[in-house]
Amino acid sequence: MKQTYFTAGPAELYPTIYQHLQTAMDEQIGSISHRSAKFRSLYQFCVEQLRELLNIPETHGVYFTGSASEVWERILLNCVEFESFHLINGSFSKKFCEYATALQKYTHKQEKPFGEGFDYGEVQVPEYAELIAVTHNETSSGVQMRTVDIHKLKRSNAKKLMAVDMVSSAPYPDLDFSLVDTAFFSVQKAFGMPAGLGVWIAGDKCLEKAELLKHGDQHIGAHHTLPTLHQNFKKYETPATPNVLFIYLLGKIAQDFNRIGIETIRKETDEKAKLLYKFIESHPQFSPFVKEDRHRSRTVVVANTQKPSSEVIAKAKESGLVVGSGYGQYKDGQIRIANFPATNAEQISQLIEVLGRV
Amino acid sequence: MKQTYFTAGPAELYPTIYQHLQTAMDEQIGSISHRSAKFRSLYQFCVEQLRELLNIPETHGVYFTGSASEVWERILLNCVEFESFHLINGSFSKKFCEYATALQKYTHKQEKPFGEGFDYGEVQVPEYAELIAVTHNETSSGVQMRTVDIHKLKRSNAKKLMAVDMVSSAPYPDLDFSLVDTAFFSVQKAFGMPAGLGVWIAGDKCLEKAELLKHGDQHIGAHHTLPTLHQNFKKYETPATPNVLFIYLLGKIAQDFNRIGIETIRKETDEKAKLLYKFIESHPQFSPFVKEDRHRSRTVVVANTQKPSSEVIAKAKESGLVVGSGYGQYKDGQIRIANFPATNAEQISQLIEVLGRV
Repeated sequence: MKQTYFTAGPAELYPTIYQHLQTAMDEQIGSISHRSAKFRSLYQFCVEQLRELLNIPETHGVYFTGSASEVWERILLNCVEFESFHLINGSFSKKFCEYATALQKYTHKQEKPFGEGFDYGEVQVPEYAELIAVTHNETSSGVQMRTVDIHKLKRSNAKKLMAVDMVSSAPYPDLDFSLVDTAFFSVQKAFGMPAGLGVWIAGDKCLEKAELLKHGDQHIGAHHTLPTLHQNFKKYETPATPNVLFIYLLGKIAQDFNRIGIETIRKETDEKAKLLYKFIESHPQFSPFVKEDRHRSRTVVVANTQKPSSEVIAKAKESGLVVGSGYGQYKDGQIRIANFPATNAEQISQLIEVLGRV
Repeated sequence: MKQTYFTAGPAELYPTIYQHLQTAMDEQIGSISHRSAKFRSLYQFCVEQLRELLNIPETHGVYFTGSASEVWERILLNCVEFESFHLINGSFSKKFCEYATALQKYTHKQEKPFGEGFDYGEVQVPEYAELIAVTHNETSSGVQMRTVDIHKLKRSNAKKLMAVDMVSSAPYPDLDFSLVDTAFFSVQKAFGMPAGLGVWIAGDKCLEKAELLKHGDQHIGAHHTLPTLHQNFKKYETPATPNVLFIYLLGKIAQDFNRIGIETIRKETDEKAKLLYKFIESHPQFSPFVKEDRHRSRTVVVANTQKPSSEVIAKAKESGLVVGSGYGQYKDGQIRIANFPATNAEQISQLIEVLGRV
């Protein structure tokens, strides 16, 4: 039986992906050279579609990596000489910080208990931090940070670089790239693609910093350095052979999203999130893990379960619906439900109906 | 018109890939969690098939990255504290060395003119080099280094780590992994897959070195460090979300290769290479770029062209056959013909016939 994946990524594939994949195979996209005009044109197409979808200005380049985790490392190597500052509100923001420690940066952090989020007013930015790392959406805890708070944080720290992890929410957050210096996501979340491609958006100021660090005492890495990525990007090429097929697919999915319109996608996401939160707030077997509405993720809904989560998950699976367990130590007492464009309101309603009978 | 790609990678897709991709989509492989039993089982399957195909012993792990270029960096970060030694016989071995310089290693190199290869007897290994980097097959120049020479080199330098770039030849070279400490390839060459997955084979000694360096003054990177990859590999998992779909496909292609048998694949490769070299040696419009037979690549054949290569390439394209141009400065006066399992003897004969009429 074909299942519907409400998991937080890898997730349900966006319905049009099958047709795009078929076209790609018919056009032999898997065989074209990454130094060919055909590749340059599909890289350019993908960038143009992402610029429209996410409102990315010309000051920012769009680069490809193997994953978003790789981007964590690349940002730290290329944009931080000594000190980074991390807002930690879940396991993935924590991992970003751990990457910084592993790279021997001096790391500052402000941390919240699992399930709580940050507001602008409470954030204390250390004086010497060169970069502020925030996670728009925490896949692990279901916490989000509002974009208005992210923007305020940058405004009052204009000289520091602002990095936004939008892995499990893009294209939902309306980031203002005149403020956000760098952001990144992976395609197996809300873009509904198979995993294997990270997307790194980085602006002039990141590039300037990388160029500066390149001539310093520490190395900025050898593979996928920002200067090399950018030099190739100017002609819509990549330093090494990239995942050509997935870049093609991402361009097509972004085009599909643009046809629907980003405002419609955001509205539908909000409406579906409302349905899910209303359900878990009112059903005796469930309760929302994140208490404050403004910190509740619109794209990954985390619910505490009365029964062991494995029972709930098994029950849903009988109806062909796959939901995720809680993250790490919360595995047994929580479920996580992705609310991505690939699953529509009808499918969310069906899930609610099935969960209601648990 | 459907074309046949004789390019050195991205290359012609292996004929069974379409069916495997269809099965993968039917089984929703693009949506499964990389922390699920299903993923662990397909990672294990892929490793088992590769162990059989390439004769990889249990002392060596099999890890996945975004590309083979990424593996260059990971080897240097994890296995070299101060000094590496590079045998340079083309543009890719040169890039490996440049990665080492970028990572602030002290790099030793021995270099050959473009189109010439190395024999064991002439190699002078510097005393303090911790790692010897050789390129089994140079995609740029069509030069190979015989595995017997690679093995001798390790035998007389037993304490140094031996790293073999087999990007554009695997599974052809019969490497002895009791001697080779680490080797790597990417899937868009002889495995006939779309680009987007690097495969890193690394043994105990590499891991020991990485564990040692981890506690030293320099960092070994944060993403895809060997200790983290290995820790996850022990349960057939990966540190971050990998390209699940391509790992699935690689396992299936490796299984197809095993059904044919590696000896048959090597024999067919030799026979097709013989056809190609015989043709370019005897036809007045072509001549082999690599003079010494023992240095001639069996998987990427480079021919000098009398006419501008663009004319030759255009002529072949009229018949739906795509061959590559020369690399870099050799672009206009050479063609490169991949001889991978995806194109059979009949297709090679057809190519020869078409090129014969140029």
